[in-house]
Amino acid sequence: MQKTAIAIHGGAGTITQSSLTAEQDKAYRAALQEAVEAGSNVLEQDGTALEAVELAVVHLEDSPLFNAGRGSVFTKEGKHEMDAAIMCGKTLEAGAIAGVRSIKNPIKLAAAIMQHSDHVMLSGYGAEEFALAYGLEFAPEKYFFDKYRYEQWSEVRDSDIFMLDHTEQRDEKFGTVGAVAVDKAGNVAAATSTGGMTNKRYNRVGDTPIIGSGTYANNRTCAISCTGHGEYFMRAVVAYDVSCLMEYKGYTLQQACDEVVLKKLVQFGGEGGLIAVTATGEIALPFNSEGMYRASKRGQDETFVGIYKR
Amino acid sequence: MQKTAIAIHGGAGTITQSSLTAEQDKAYRAALQEAVEAGSNVLEQDGTALEAVELAVVHLEDSPLFNAGRGSVFTKEGKHEMDAAIMCGKTLEAGAIAGVRSIKNPIKLAAAIMQHSDHVMLSGYGAEEFALAYGLEFAPEKYFFDKYRYEQWSEVRDSDIFMLDHTEQRDEKFGTVGAVAVDKAGNVAAATSTGGMTNKRYNRVGDTPIIGSGTYANNRTCAISCTGHGEYFMRAVVAYDVSCLMEYKGYTLQQACDEVVLKKLVQFGGEGGLIAVTATGEIALPFNSEGMYRASKRGQDETFVGIYKR
Repeated sequence: MQKTAIAIHGGAGTITQSSLTAEQDKAYRAALQEAVEAGSNVLEQDGTALEAVELAVVHLEDSPLFNAGRGSVFTKEGKHEMDAAIMCGKTLEAGAIAGVRSIKNPIKLAAAIMQHSDHVMLSGYGAEEFALAYGLEFAPEKYFFDKYRYEQWSEVRDSDIFMLDHTEQRDEKFGTVGAVAVDKAGNVAAATSTGGMTNKRYNRVGDTPIIGSGTYANNRTCAISCTGHGEYFMRAVVAYDVSCLMEYKGYTLQQACDEVVLKKLVQFGGEGGLIAVTATGEIALPFNSEGMYRASKRGQDETFVGIYKR
Repeated sequence: MQKTAIAIHGGAGTITQSSLTAEQDKAYRAALQEAVEAGSNVLEQDGTALEAVELAVVHLEDSPLFNAGRGSVFTKEGKHEMDAAIMCGKTLEAGAIAGVRSIKNPIKLAAAIMQHSDHVMLSGYGAEEFALAYGLEFAPEKYFFDKYRYEQWSEVRDSDIFMLDHTEQRDEKFGTVGAVAVDKAGNVAAATSTGGMTNKRYNRVGDTPIIGSGTYANNRTCAISCTGHGEYFMRAVVAYDVSCLMEYKGYTLQQACDEVVLKKLVQFGGEGGLIAVTATGEIALPFNSEGMYRASKRGQDETFVGIYKR
């Protein structure tokens, strides 16, 4: 039987030790640890990788610390617009949503689409209509209200500035959450969820819900969830690129991650990172930014939690 | 200087000689020939591949024969909802839209996003707001009205049936249009546009606007535009898969197309096809369905137009 493994992220960007107070540092670490251990418990209790990544992402969506679900940032219109995707590495089935509002846990909606519809991707009001039909939980606007996010948005709402996540340096943090896992049966899965960019307009869709860019899973190679400047990740088809380097060039997971995240994306100007796990339980957490909220756990080994580069 | 090449498609599916009248056959061939020659003229007059694919797709969008732009099918709500994408193989810049209504030429909107915004993908009303801001042409509902499409929709509007395009056998034709080209400078580009599925619900998004799935271009390999059962094309990341087989395994364009369209997609159950052109002017038009509306032209060679398998 396969040793289980899970990794999660809570976004990447200019996250340095000096940018977080000791209290914030502690709160982020606690939230990451809780989410990764919730997912790990599912795996250790013979749950599937799909169940584990969904639960870990639900935990991150329910935390106001991360830009997904409850903690989603404000759009230009003062609303919250969320994207999410989930993929099964065994069947290559996938579900994704773009631009939904009022859905408490977007990742649950993505999973419902994968399980109950003939489609991969639904968007906007149509995705919400599907959520209603399948009994997903809705949440009122005040559920997504956060004083810090509101103030951050208020500063830029009358400008054309959009921000990739909350940060005093602006657009230097990429708010996304994600999880990848392999279960005892050796099946991998990936899940990603985001509230997008602060003050975003025009119903912009980033890489998160794009199968092959922000999210991908395939038992033959690995499961991947990305976080970063979405437009670059879409143009570079990042997640599937890692998978193809493994499948077609025989790269190890680490070699493929180094090539894509530390070389190609850097040359391209695409800041961010990703988390990945192979069907054999290898884990990689590469990023080319100052920091990435991340955690991982293999079987019953000690939980790893990291924020900064070193 | 590079010999120019361009290929277009107008959808794939169960298109047999017996399913089209002689008159229909003639009308489709004339429309395909006109569109591919319009694009070819751009290339021969030293235009860019981007300009050529955009113009060829505009011609196909303006024809009521194809499921894109003017000829778009009806959604469950009796509306028209269109997706499109365009990508430049030199810069890897891309623009895409999902679920727009009332836009006369969706491919022009995708091109405007690529040229004028920091984003790759916009959706729904937000994409229309962007179109308004950038002076794109809108069209009233009656512009998209077509008696045949309306009757086809009326038959299924009260059911849960969705159809991949107009056909008496239902869901056996995949309505999309696309173009790929290489210009005299050796730059490739790809463009795809669709009206989606008849009677579709929930703002479903298919592979057309997904960079890496329905549309991809990279000077190092080729430009690709797909048509088929979108969900399978998304899960298989078809366009980037062809590109990766060329880049990472050294396959020729034809070998990569055979592997993806005739082998992987067939095993996977994904019916459809694609058009592709390399930076050196090779063209491939593979499909695993009964037919695919297609045409191609290299430099000033004779124009090829095809519909059926043989």
